[in-house]
Amino acid sequence: MNPIVDSQFDPIGYLVSDFQQRFATPRQGALVPSGRAILTLTPKWHGAGALEGLEKFSHVWLISLLHASPSKNPPTKVHPPRLKGEKVGVFASRSPHRPNPIGLTLARIREVKRDQLILSEVDLIDQTPILDIKPYVAPADRPLEFSNGWTNQLEDSNHPVQFATICEQQLAVLVPEAEGIRIRSLIEETLRLDPRPLSYLEKRDFVFAARLAGLDVHFQFENETFKVIGIYSAATTEALRPNP
Amino acid sequence: MNPIVDSQFDPIGYLVSDFQQRFATPRQGALVPSGRAILTLTPKWHGAGALEGLEKFSHVWLISLLHASPSKNPPTKVHPPRLKGEKVGVFASRSPHRPNPIGLTLARIREVKRDQLILSEVDLIDQTPILDIKPYVAPADRPLEFSNGWTNQLEDSNHPVQFATICEQQLAVLVPEAEGIRIRSLIEETLRLDPRPLSYLEKRDFVFAARLAGLDVHFQFENETFKVIGIYSAATTEALRPNP
Repeated sequence: MNPIVDSQFDPIGYLVSDFQQRFATPRQGALVPSGRAILTLTPKWHGAGALEGLEKFSHVWLISLLHASPSKNPPTKVHPPRLKGEKVGVFASRSPHRPNPIGLTLARIREVKRDQLILSEVDLIDQTPILDIKPYVAPADRPLEFSNGWTNQLEDSNHPVQFATICEQQLAVLVPEAEGIRIRSLIEETLRLDPRPLSYLEKRDFVFAARLAGLDVHFQFENETFKVIGIYSAATTEALRPNP
Repeated sequence: MNPIVDSQFDPIGYLVSDFQQRFATPRQGALVPSGRAILTLTPKWHGAGALEGLEKFSHVWLISLLHASPSKNPPTKVHPPRLKGEKVGVFASRSPHRPNPIGLTLARIREVKRDQLILSEVDLIDQTPILDIKPYVAPADRPLEFSNGWTNQLEDSNHPVQFATICEQQLAVLVPEAEGIRIRSLIEETLRLDPRPLSYLEKRDFVFAARLAGLDVHFQFENETFKVIGIYSAATTEALRPNP
């Protein structure tokens, strides 16, 4: 048997997601319920009814290509951020750095359109290629008894998030009124999880920028609190960036 | 963006499974709890500790290549057997015939060895290439509320299974004593689900043969009962088969 599978996988669609960079993309979508993603099937699937029957399901599995996680020489062991330095085998982790860069995401269905799914609770970044959609079926996917191994009892960070007054004004200008509350929640839910990389935990004055839903959200960590200090249109800041 | 992802996926291991043909492989592994599968990592992973940390998890997701389900031109709609003729979109089904032949299986961990997992509740056939192993993590994989769409309220077949006296004797000869009870349960659990293809439901005298755990299990369906009429070593019957 040929050990290399010469598969050509043809993405069935690409995701448009609020999370536009690996930085600040949540480890798990359900932790940021205000996040939204839209999966549009590629044209070859249009009108074929491939999504029909999904209407009464609450959730789908997205099988994705983790295109932003290079894995030419993936580690056999990884450091899960919440284990603060301890290592586990890559197959005992949900790290995006994997021998084969395939992601598994449980997403909540918000609306089924003819060739499009409107989703929430997605932990994937914008433009992720989707290889397959499968319905969540409890008898197959929901064991009666289970144990969560080393992830058991690990608590998620839950820091307060404050918005500077100027940021409330910036939000009101940048975001359509109907979306204002959701986008504010998106920022709050994302930051309270503490998106800072381990190596930045000691850098107290550092200004981080998270790209969320077309916005560049600038924030600092001070007195155990995330402080949002500026919110800008990503389109504008992109134009201001020097060429790399 | 290139619509075709030219990925070379390198299986991390191949499964040895009790289910040796597509015929009689259960739709869902938990329905045949006596089934066993062994996943051995390929040599490049040996000794690297890639499975370390799985010990305290109860379940893993297996991401597999559905190598036995040809899908050059997969249908956009499928006929799930339990819907008796009704169609649903392929993305609203767990059919193995998919645009990209990727399988998702929740398996129960029975034992974690250095480079091997002993598993049960697997719905995959023997020699399935495994592309990834991910631990089952309830906060990510277990929504608090959910709905199962069209699969809701569908009941599984549960026909009685009878063993002819000769079959009890054949089992005693062919199967090591320590495995006798498990293999008998494997056969029973598999047949009671009714593995017959839809097009064979009316063929009352037909003798079916299911290859399970190295055995060829011959059975008929009579008076709403599955009757096991002969059990043979698959190695022997293989030798007797005319060349195709």
